[in-house]
Amino acid sequence: MDKVSIGLLGFGTVGTGVVRLLTKERERLEERTGCAIQLEKVLVRNKNRPRKVLIDSRKLTTDVYEILDNPGIDIVIELIGGVDRAYRYILRALKNKKNVITANKDLMAEYGEELLLEAKKNRCDLYYEASVAGGIPILRALTDSLAADRIQKMIGIVNGTTNYILSKMSHEGLSYEKSLVSAQRLGFAEADPTSDVEGLDAARKMVILSHLAYSIPVKMEDVKIKGITDVTREDIVYAQKLGYTIKLVGIAEVSNGDIDVRVEPTLLPNGHPLASVENENNAIYVYGSLLGETMFYGPGAGEGPTAISVVSDLLSVIRNMALGVTGHHIFMPKKEMHPKKDSLIESQFFVRLHMKDKPGSFSKLTDLFKEQGISLEKLYQEPIIGQDVAEVSIVTHRAHKVLFEKSFDMLKKFEVVLNAKYFRVERG
Amino acid sequence: MDKVSIGLLGFGTVGTGVVRLLTKERERLEERTGCAIQLEKVLVRNKNRPRKVLIDSRKLTTDVYEILDNPGIDIVIELIGGVDRAYRYILRALKNKKNVITANKDLMAEYGEELLLEAKKNRCDLYYEASVAGGIPILRALTDSLAADRIQKMIGIVNGTTNYILSKMSHEGLSYEKSLVSAQRLGFAEADPTSDVEGLDAARKMVILSHLAYSIPVKMEDVKIKGITDVTREDIVYAQKLGYTIKLVGIAEVSNGDIDVRVEPTLLPNGHPLASVENENNAIYVYGSLLGETMFYGPGAGEGPTAISVVSDLLSVIRNMALGVTGHHIFMPKKEMHPKKDSLIESQFFVRLHMKDKPGSFSKLTDLFKEQGISLEKLYQEPIIGQDVAEVSIVTHRAHKVLFEKSFDMLKKFEVVLNAKYFRVERG
Repeated sequence: MDKVSIGLLGFGTVGTGVVRLLTKERERLEERTGCAIQLEKVLVRNKNRPRKVLIDSRKLTTDVYEILDNPGIDIVIELIGGVDRAYRYILRALKNKKNVITANKDLMAEYGEELLLEAKKNRCDLYYEASVAGGIPILRALTDSLAADRIQKMIGIVNGTTNYILSKMSHEGLSYEKSLVSAQRLGFAEADPTSDVEGLDAARKMVILSHLAYSIPVKMEDVKIKGITDVTREDIVYAQKLGYTIKLVGIAEVSNGDIDVRVEPTLLPNGHPLASVENENNAIYVYGSLLGETMFYGPGAGEGPTAISVVSDLLSVIRNMALGVTGHHIFMPKKEMHPKKDSLIESQFFVRLHMKDKPGSFSKLTDLFKEQGISLEKLYQEPIIGQDVAEVSIVTHRAHKVLFEKSFDMLKKFEVVLNAKYFRVERG
Repeated sequence: MDKVSIGLLGFGTVGTGVVRLLTKERERLEERTGCAIQLEKVLVRNKNRPRKVLIDSRKLTTDVYEILDNPGIDIVIELIGGVDRAYRYILRALKNKKNVITANKDLMAEYGEELLLEAKKNRCDLYYEASVAGGIPILRALTDSLAADRIQKMIGIVNGTTNYILSKMSHEGLSYEKSLVSAQRLGFAEADPTSDVEGLDAARKMVILSHLAYSIPVKMEDVKIKGITDVTREDIVYAQKLGYTIKLVGIAEVSNGDIDVRVEPTLLPNGHPLASVENENNAIYVYGSLLGETMFYGPGAGEGPTAISVVSDLLSVIRNMALGVTGHHIFMPKKEMHPKKDSLIESQFFVRLHMKDKPGSFSKLTDLFKEQGISLEKLYQEPIIGQDVAEVSIVTHRAHKVLFEKSFDMLKKFEVVLNAKYFRVERG
């Protein structure tokens, strides 16, 4: 094999990064693969738009079928994003026996199983490292390096936008709204930030990670999702007073064959390695039964990191082609999905509330938890100056979620309690 | 291919872990590889010693040639450690066309290139993931995931023993000697701790990492090595006062084709992700030109983590055997070794000294640095109670190493300066 031909769908930020990398590092990449890597065609919306990278304009096309149905193209790299169009294009590419690389998490979270099956049927590769945590090689780690271990739990900071917003709120004292605007200005958040701030993007990544780590066909509707729009500056400040950092984390945990996948703002002890993952960075913490705890940290997005992941996938595909083994490396969910029952879920919780300054208010609170059998680990109270109200923060010991929620509902009904809210607390 | 046969050299901690894993996870591993994994023979020193894991005693042998020359054995796993014997055994196994997996960093740092060449010649695999940072899949990350990037710098906490000792000194206020005893009691340090505390072990790992990341044949004598035996509690305390944590780090850095590899106690800013790597854990921070900064964190040693890495290698070898591509994945140093000239090396430095309490002492110090063109970033001074001496800590701005060392030598000769010492400071 002395040449592979590539068709690229999409010429935005990541597409530009891929073209730049293939051009700049051409010699080194070809040395590694032992064959010429030829960029044959690039699908664009507008052929005349100025580009940030030099490219022969004859390679640009607005007709996707010049790529998908082109017998001269071996590998299709999909970087157009979105679900429906990307799904149709990839399906067609696979049916035409082309290997596919994609960075599309929305697509892989929704149609991953089906597309991987189609790839296998056609003896093609379908690689998607860039779809989760941009530059962090977590998918490869799960399929190769950690293959011999039994993974029990993954905790991930897998959305750079929300991590950037929470970092800003935490370190610069900005409100949620101002931090969001700052993220938008820097290009870390989109004009419509819903998918990021409501936790949907993180949930999709946890779906993909769960497929790989546990071979369980988790779907989006199986993930309990809560975004960061209700997290305030004060929540962050009082969590910090008790020694915790609030992060939007995705957790996927298996015990006794049951799986629990959730995305929500969570308190991490300050000593936890994930607590110091700042700004737009991502990290995934993996608990293996033999390996213990490992963490993979790096940039979650951006032209360079995502392009690196795409081109690493490309090198794998080319190697597989040379060996004649495309399609052999695909693992698909094999087990059944058994969601963990709510009644089995335990956690520590952080409660924040305002309490009217009346005699006996505080003991009413502590009595309630005592009666419910929930013991308290940490407690912080301070008066709010100029009001007859105290600021109260509590971290409970580990308790059944159902029991805790029942207690919390009772607590909210106390006449002396105002503005009560709670978050999960992760162990150190 | 429906069966592979394995010969194991060594039945100590890691050997026991490997046998345990192969037994306990047999079904899952065979499902992944599609073939039966048969442990054929285990080389031991004493057949009658009690074992922590169940094994058919007929599999034990004290004759290594029952494994190395056994035509029924496909894969040899070397876990006896040491250099000479391991070298001879692995060479013989390779010449007999057996694939080899080793966890032996001493061997790979010294004879890696030769053995990899021999493996290639015989079309055999030689995998050694467990030789660096136990459970962290860093070698695979460098060869696969980061293959498309150009790595510029690696900083590693790659020795668990010294990191444990420094953590103890830092958090529990123990002396070096007491921390070492504690490490020995817990099995994190050997009776003769020289190789760990003098930085040799870390240097060997940096040699292996440099081969893989840069394709440069770095040798042990190319590494500048300084251990932790001179680090005191006070160094740690005063570094902390200026916002730094002292860690034994290995650094391998390439610029303009020149390489600088060193192992020494180094001040890391507290916000640096490596600063919070505690106890016996390891981590490697990688700077790629496109990827930016990534970190791989996890347990650096221990039965479970090392066994996981060995068995992950085993799965790769079996997969390669099934595909008929053993020996194809071996990368070897290709470039020449050009050490970076001392005169080109720049860094920040941390200076600690005692100064006699005489008028003008302090300005003598600052004048010296000023005259030499070295500016100071941070400065801390406090009197030592009951003595006419002050404790002084200084962090310089970035300066040429040669110039700094000249200034430091001048400073040591000042009559008012006592006990001066210095460390490198790494940027955040």
